[in-house]
Amino acid sequence: MENSSKIPVGILGATGSVGQKFISLLANHPWFEIAEVAASERSAGKTYKQAVNWVLSSPLPEFVGELTVQECEPNLKSKIIFSGLDSGVAGLIEEAFAKKGYFVVSNSKNHRMDKDVPLLVPEINADHLELIKIQNYNGGCIVTNPNCSTIGMVLALKPLHDNFGLEAVNVVTMQALSGAGYPGVASLDIIDNVIPFISGEEPKLESEPLKILGILDKDHIQNVDIKISAQCNRVAVVDGHLECVQVKLKKKATKEEIISIWRKFSAEPQKYNLPTAPLNPIYYFDEEKYPQPRIHRDLDKGMAASVGRLREDNLFDFKFVVLSHNTNRGAAGGAILCAELMKAKGYI
Amino acid sequence: MENSSKIPVGILGATGSVGQKFISLLANHPWFEIAEVAASERSAGKTYKQAVNWVLSSPLPEFVGELTVQECEPNLKSKIIFSGLDSGVAGLIEEAFAKKGYFVVSNSKNHRMDKDVPLLVPEINADHLELIKIQNYNGGCIVTNPNCSTIGMVLALKPLHDNFGLEAVNVVTMQALSGAGYPGVASLDIIDNVIPFISGEEPKLESEPLKILGILDKDHIQNVDIKISAQCNRVAVVDGHLECVQVKLKKKATKEEIISIWRKFSAEPQKYNLPTAPLNPIYYFDEEKYPQPRIHRDLDKGMAASVGRLREDNLFDFKFVVLSHNTNRGAAGGAILCAELMKAKGYI
Amino acid sequence: MENSSKIPVGILGATGSVGQKFISLLANHPWFEIAEVAASERSAGKTYKQAVNWVLSSPLPEFVGELTVQECEPNLKSKIIFSGLDSGVAGLIEEAFAKKGYFVVSNSKNHRMDKDVPLLVPEINADHLELIKIQNYNGGCIVTNPNCSTIGMVLALKPLHDNFGLEAVNVVTMQALSGAGYPGVASLDIIDNVIPFISGEEPKLESEPLKILGILDKDHIQNVDIKISAQCNRVAVVDGHLECVQVKLKKKATKEEIISIWRKFSAEPQKYNLPTAPLNPIYYFDEEKYPQPRIHRDLDKGMAASVGRLREDNLFDFKFVVLSHNTNRGAAGGAILCAELMKAKGYI
Amino acid sequence: MENSSKIPVGILGATGSVGQKFISLLANHPWFEIAEVAASERSAGKTYKQAVNWVLSSPLPEFVGELTVQECEPNLKSKIIFSGLDSGVAGLIEEAFAKKGYFVVSNSKNHRMDKDVPLLVPEINADHLELIKIQNYNGGCIVTNPNCSTIGMVLALKPLHDNFGLEAVNVVTMQALSGAGYPGVASLDIIDNVIPFISGEEPKLESEPLKILGILDKDHIQNVDIKISAQCNRVAVVDGHLECVQVKLKKKATKEEIISIWRKFSAEPQKYNLPTAPLNPIYYFDEEKYPQPRIHRDLDKGMAASVGRLREDNLFDFKFVVLSHNTNRGAAGGAILCAELMKAKGYI
Repeated sequence: MENSSKIPVGILGATGSVGQKFISLLANHPWFEIAEVAASERSAGKTYKQAVNWVLSSPLPEFVGELTVQECEPNLKSKIIFSGLDSGVAGLIEEAFAKKGYFVVSNSKNHRMDKDVPLLVPEINADHLELIKIQNYNGGCIVTNPNCSTIGMVLALKPLHDNFGLEAVNVVTMQALSGAGYPGVASLDIIDNVIPFISGEEPKLESEPLKILGILDKDHIQNVDIKISAQCNRVAVVDGHLECVQVKLKKKATKEEIISIWRKFSAEPQKYNLPTAPLNPIYYFDEEKYPQPRIHRDLDKGMAASVGRLREDNLFDFKFVVLSHNTNRGAAGGAILCAELMKAKGYI
Repeated sequence: MENSSKIPVGILGATGSVGQKFISLLANHPWFEIAEVAASERSAGKTYKQAVNWVLSSPLPEFVGELTVQECEPNLKSKIIFSGLDSGVAGLIEEAFAKKGYFVVSNSKNHRMDKDVPLLVPEINADHLELIKIQNYNGGCIVTNPNCSTIGMVLALKPLHDNFGLEAVNVVTMQALSGAGYPGVASLDIIDNVIPFISGEEPKLESEPLKILGILDKDHIQNVDIKISAQCNRVAVVDGHLECVQVKLKKKATKEEIISIWRKFSAEPQKYNLPTAPLNPIYYFDEEKYPQPRIHRDLDKGMAASVGRLREDNLFDFKFVVLSHNTNRGAAGGAILCAELMKAKGYI
Repeated sequence: MENSSKIPVGILGATGSVGQKFISLLANHPWFEIAEVAASERSAGKTYKQAVNWVLSSPLPEFVGELTVQECEPNLKSKIIFSGLDSGVAGLIEEAFAKKGYFVVSNSKNHRMDKDVPLLVPEINADHLELIKIQNYNGGCIVTNPNCSTIGMVLALKPLHDNFGLEAVNVVTMQALSGAGYPGVASLDIIDNVIPFISGEEPKLESEPLKILGILDKDHIQNVDIKISAQCNRVAVVDGHLECVQVKLKKKATKEEIISIWRKFSAEPQKYNLPTAPLNPIYYFDEEKYPQPRIHRDLDKGMAASVGRLREDNLFDFKFVVLSHNTNRGAAGGAILCAELMKAKGYI
Repeated sequence: MENSSKIPVGILGATGSVGQKFISLLANHPWFEIAEVAASERSAGKTYKQAVNWVLSSPLPEFVGELTVQECEPNLKSKIIFSGLDSGVAGLIEEAFAKKGYFVVSNSKNHRMDKDVPLLVPEINADHLELIKIQNYNGGCIVTNPNCSTIGMVLALKPLHDNFGLEAVNVVTMQALSGAGYPGVASLDIIDNVIPFISGEEPKLESEPLKILGILDKDHIQNVDIKISAQCNRVAVVDGHLECVQVKLKKKATKEEIISIWRKFSAEPQKYNLPTAPLNPIYYFDEEKYPQPRIHRDLDKGMAASVGRLREDNLFDFKFVVLSHNTNRGAAGGAILCAELMKAKGYI
């Protein structure tokens, strides 16, 4: 696809840390082209280069640096809008765009639990996209991406649920610093330390999977009936959320069956060969010490869930460890995959 | 107590990291006096200063530096022996000392699960000391200290078990580097990383509490009937094991009751006012972000368990976070407290 | 000295990170008693406990937590005032206090280079205190403490300058995070990283030593004539500034002479046996790998300079490494030592 | 170039950390093909996958995992040999290979200072390759790569030396953990710490640049006459050596001239467009806070030197900061670039 034939996209909240990640991942995208960047009034009117405090280690793409930052008003030329807006303002702005006919793919939490909004993980619930047909947005729509701590776990849970039925899930997370944005966690709070609390995180992790794994029933999602308990910790890791997960299953399963099912798992993003899709959504490691954040977070474009240490459990049926990249798969990369799926399936 | 009237003690494995901690904590002890240090053949005959690669940040006490390192043979003059021996050799050496009439207080795992050996946490099971009367050691004995990841949790569990009855316990740990000894974990393995595996740790954490909370029944301990599941992780923290714990109780309890019971908890070490005993075995923090390793590990001489975030749980009854210092309370300090209790109660 | 007979002191900027350190170090001071805490309007009127976000690992002293925070107006009852004010406001507030007759001992940079203000390191330039007699402050005065990166180096330089004459000094620092206050450096900026820039730091390190080592000449300090070049870096260390120093001397010196002179170095704070004074201002380590921040920063109450690796240099005469605790010796502890010296010498 | 037409290469010390980096960088090389891996007796006979403890975050290439590890005897089929051998054995083994006609490109220190061995940095002293014609190795040869802390600095120095003449260089390093190999530095030694000593490092950094910048004079290198002083520190960074450098120049230079000269710097690897060559050997950053290890180490394939903070100096003429990737540019990547240059210029 030549540049001229790429689909122009706009990025809301472009100067924030999620916005930067959107830019970094879309800079050389084969289908989409960054045409517009928008941010708060304070930044509007400046060139992006002037407005941003670029914190990623990949360099700021030059052509994006030259774009003039626009206000987050629904008068952009691009029809496809990625939102990395702060949740303090995301709700109303995203609605305003949708009402004007824009396709909004958002990483913010505001609309995730709306009845008519898909909480989309393309490998898991591609069919939930049908919901957008009932959205009252004059042809526009809002599609959301789950929280960064939800997505790795739910990828590992999906094949278990399909094959054996999930009854209960227990999870304890060790989450990376980039999940808190920038400047985020103070260095004095985390060097030689762990913080056993992340504001608002546990409720998300206990509720979002119920919708993601839920069943589309005409005009709404029937949440799945699984009990989930979550405990969230912040550790001195730059990127990559690691999670200790325990599951109770409805049907008997062996360790070998589960590993085999994980390794074979493949879904629509793989079928459509979407540009941002991992070759395999799940990698299982036999080495007891794996997965590890620094070693595996970038695996398969940072879009895969790395799983290891599956073993029988005294209290549940099985326990295992799962890792996924919180700003790729868990934020901007996940949202881009949503947009790719929408295009591949003809929604946009 | 003047120096001349202090009780001489010997330290086995004195050059290792646990041995060094014994030295550091005993250097100014009001009851005990470091009289002898013993280590492997390689070190024997040298002064301690020459033999040791001192890795603690507190300085090596000068008078200990001048002691000549002896072999780990049961011909020391001190009757009380602290063992920080590596588990590869601890088993036989400790037995040899006990058979010759020494009182061996060990931090090694070898004899912890022996039928006639107390696995002692002075605040919890002081009565288990009676077991040493049936040991076949010609007047000597072996008393052990639990694993560093066990002790913080079991301190928090004890008052719950006494008041409400424990049915099940689930724990996920984030353990400090010093727990792996020196040189231990390679820096390249832990900077910007978490290792979701610690060899041999989970089985200890799933079994030791059953004996510690067990009932002394004449000549043995009747293990308590609690189901425990443990998952152990290594994080980039120097000292202090942090653990996310969930409990299922036999009787109803409220959050307020539990916090009140924890705050009131006090036991024999506090009653006898033992020199190494914390004023309070358990500190409960109301701040959601506490406890944290770097902030609370040294609390009350590094001998207390710091607890926080008690809340109701979807899958168990309650969940909370507990922290304790793994080389003080969880190793050398814990063993010294055992010896103090033995002396206070007339066993030695 | 009974509590009733202690000298009441006030702390300005009491809720900030330097203010907290003042509180922590003064809580059990044998001469001084924390009587008043003052901070910005936002905090004034609250109890200290409510107003502060306590970030130190030593617990907030209870009696201080109950004090009502006052505004930074010169109507406190204590005559001795410690200032940990932010440099944005310190200048005028400190002057206002001095003019009303208060003795202000400040850790802020604002008045350090004032002609009539001592930039005091009690071991080095106790005689500079005479300057306060010419201050136009109606009996009050301002005394300042140097920058945290200056003080360790200048302690090591003083005996070299006295004995051999300094001609040039080159220094490259690796500075701790606590030097940037709280929240200070973002964790994403420093995990697995070094920042080779600290705003405003190099000019301070190149100029302050010239005044500190200067000669009191009636009503002013004659700066010493030494060329200094400084390069400052931030590293992932909680406390303790480490510095690589090179010196060119006017007279010949041997390595042995220098080490001997350092080890013998002692000055007025030691003579008066001031409560916060280290037993030895300088400790020299023979081990090539020392000093190290985590091992040596707390040495001798965190008030000593730890020095090591003295060796001849290809470009200067000698090079060595020096470490000192940036928030103890380099901030609050250093300022308290100044006040102790003032009392011991009858200035207050 | 099809696989069949690639040049087969062998790797000595293939299981070590430098060996692993060679494998990772050569796995998809357009000219070279990993045909043989050799290591110590202990590993010989096993498949590489069995023999290696793979510590890199990039995955072990599958086809290399299947190769049988050979002994380090000069009977390999590949003519080009990369050596990542430990310096304890590298000297004799590399000679043995050279004598049998192999082209040995080594990252070990043993032969670096040999009179007839090029200490090669392709952008700096490509002409030194002529030395191999006088080596007494029956058609074989040894070419070496400098120490990881030398190479970044010397890249920045080269254009200064060519344009203004270097008189003196002062350098203080903050070096990454991967420079110490695996397991290397213990985590307990470096978390919340700096180690101001790296065994053997300072002499290398003070001597290697003299040869690299030296003049080829028939059968030997005339070392350049520059005084260098080095101080080396280990910091908690995974990859990337950061160095504070000061220079005294023979001719006058302005800051603008130097920056311009750095930015224009280009040499033979760029002219020949060698596969591993960076597009620009030197990147200069205007932002005061750059370069930083985590942000810039991977710039331009991890083969560039990132430079910043050029400013006038009180003691020398200028000071600046330079960063380079110690295991790419500073080890395996640098050696591969040497081999590419040798091929492009017809030496092999």
